[in-house]
Amino acid sequence: MGEVVKLAHGAGSVETSQILESLIFSKIEERLKKVEGGLGIDFPDDAAAIPMGDGRFLVVTVDSYTVNPPFFPGGDIGVLAASGSINDVLMLGGKPIALMDAIIVEEGFPLEDLRRIVDSMLRVLREEGVALIGGDFKVMPKGQIDKIAIATVGIGIADRLIVDRPQPGDKIVVSGYLGDHGAAILARQIGIIDEGSGGGLVSDVKPLTRLMLPLVEKYGPHIHAARDPTRGGLAMALNDWAKASGTVIIVEESAIPIRPQVAYYANMLGIDPLALASEGAAVLSVSPDVAEEVVEFMKKLGFDNAAIIGEVRKAERYRGYVLLKTVVGGLRILEAPRGDLVPRIC
Amino acid sequence: MGEVVKLAHGAGSVETSQILESLIFSKIEERLKKVEGGLGIDFPDDAAAIPMGDGRFLVVTVDSYTVNPPFFPGGDIGVLAASGSINDVLMLGGKPIALMDAIIVEEGFPLEDLRRIVDSMLRVLREEGVALIGGDFKVMPKGQIDKIAIATVGIGIADRLIVDRPQPGDKIVVSGYLGDHGAAILARQIGIIDEGSGGGLVSDVKPLTRLMLPLVEKYGPHIHAARDPTRGGLAMALNDWAKASGTVIIVEESAIPIRPQVAYYANMLGIDPLALASEGAAVLSVSPDVAEEVVEFMKKLGFDNAAIIGEVRKAERYRGYVLLKTVVGGLRILEAPRGDLVPRIC
Repeated sequence: MGEVVKLAHGAGSVETSQILESLIFSKIEERLKKVEGGLGIDFPDDAAAIPMGDGRFLVVTVDSYTVNPPFFPGGDIGVLAASGSINDVLMLGGKPIALMDAIIVEEGFPLEDLRRIVDSMLRVLREEGVALIGGDFKVMPKGQIDKIAIATVGIGIADRLIVDRPQPGDKIVVSGYLGDHGAAILARQIGIIDEGSGGGLVSDVKPLTRLMLPLVEKYGPHIHAARDPTRGGLAMALNDWAKASGTVIIVEESAIPIRPQVAYYANMLGIDPLALASEGAAVLSVSPDVAEEVVEFMKKLGFDNAAIIGEVRKAERYRGYVLLKTVVGGLRILEAPRGDLVPRIC
Repeated sequence: MGEVVKLAHGAGSVETSQILESLIFSKIEERLKKVEGGLGIDFPDDAAAIPMGDGRFLVVTVDSYTVNPPFFPGGDIGVLAASGSINDVLMLGGKPIALMDAIIVEEGFPLEDLRRIVDSMLRVLREEGVALIGGDFKVMPKGQIDKIAIATVGIGIADRLIVDRPQPGDKIVVSGYLGDHGAAILARQIGIIDEGSGGGLVSDVKPLTRLMLPLVEKYGPHIHAARDPTRGGLAMALNDWAKASGTVIIVEESAIPIRPQVAYYANMLGIDPLALASEGAAVLSVSPDVAEEVVEFMKKLGFDNAAIIGEVRKAERYRGYVLLKTVVGGLRILEAPRGDLVPRIC
């Protein structure tokens, strides 16, 4: 019996990078990795960019959402699909202008539930002024797909791209609490909380337009990297950055905003909360001279828990690593997550 | 018990139009149906267009592919996903430049099969010179999805759009045999043919770049509509056109190129071959003064069975209908397909 695909391959973790490297990245010629002058699969992010010829870039993203359950505390797969793709466009410095969706649903799925999901998606688009310009709709026979999966395409335009190049000296800034989405989904999957209450664990899923557009307008050239820490959480995002830029990133554990109930719950399950997904938070790498100002600006925009959590340093040792100054005073390596903490998280 | 989603809702048939109208089109404000100056969901096609500001249009399409089985005579889901999205871009008059993919695969799926599928996709991209600029990869636990589904985003640039406005007097031209893909998949699903032989039923799946780019360059303004007749086949495409343009389309049954084995097989199952999907054929509505020339041009490009199969007329009666002049001499209404002939055809 040959090798098979494992859950961990799809977890957005180290194993995901490995399988994609083996299946795709190593097989494709350089010239086919991007449109000339843009960003493609040689760029480790969820979005791609195509030059428009007038100095601007078209930003395009695709993501499939398979979250289980489709309704969860704080949102549903419709809000998640729309917000996730809008956020992917924003993190590359783009202004989201349009969305497309491809829905695959199981035969027998309640029409009322499908209507709720689509309504959620449309509500996000309406609030954000993003057009729904096309899509696809397929039904798979009963038992051939569990409930519903949605692939969404986010489309935006960027005057300048944020190309994820953290620079030595940069401060790492987060927009608020981390890990809320991951904790809420995990708790639902394990069956601890029900759809209604959530036991204080509520997904943070939301579009980050009102955060990112003003930030990019005001501090654009100072933002050297931006990511929404979804699958793999903060741990994955920072490891990607450290590896790609050949720096070392040092993070102060006590400075990272994590809700007590998320920390408690993660602790109970023996999971690192820094590897839990957020769906409504941003991590930025910004010039040190504006970092404090950026945090204040975020707070004024309503992101009350924004904080500086660490910094980027030129690597003497630990090149490409993320180091965590723990609350008790030690220094440990924060590794990129392995395995599959939570299947079908997004 | 409330209403549920049915297979027919996803068949690309009348029921699909109805559920999308009810769930999406009727719920969304006009301003959110497209990017200003472009084409969006108010346009009944698989692709959308966004003006680039210099007279050109960015063409973007999304489609999810769920074909069962993933390997079939003439191709696999990888070839299908790449070709289908390339063709959707071409049918809007675009030159395909990039693709993105979102793969969802079942835990336990053989890695070797996944590699074959991805290799197929990459081979198409390589042959077409289309870049793979990004994507997403998710794994669903065993039993939560049957094998694999791929959503692909096709991206292209059009100097001028083909906006599907058939005009009275136009001739309907097809590029070759119709229904090959649908017949091959249906036969595999029913179990009549195996993967190897196919009993003469072989999918026509292929990109149509070498047909459409020269055609658009030479006859662009004369091509008033273009479609690749996938789900719902020729019957669906022509009914869409007749309805949207308020014309009547009259088709000569004897002129439609259908392989004997496809006709035989469809006849045996009591299925109209005109409702079977093609994945490597084009249907065009072209000015009558160039129609013969277009057919000759297609033949020179290697599409030996290209033919004029009918014409568009100003509707006195039967406005919005498609009429079929049958081989035996009668005239019957060719209706848009209803129900689900073949689930998971593409």
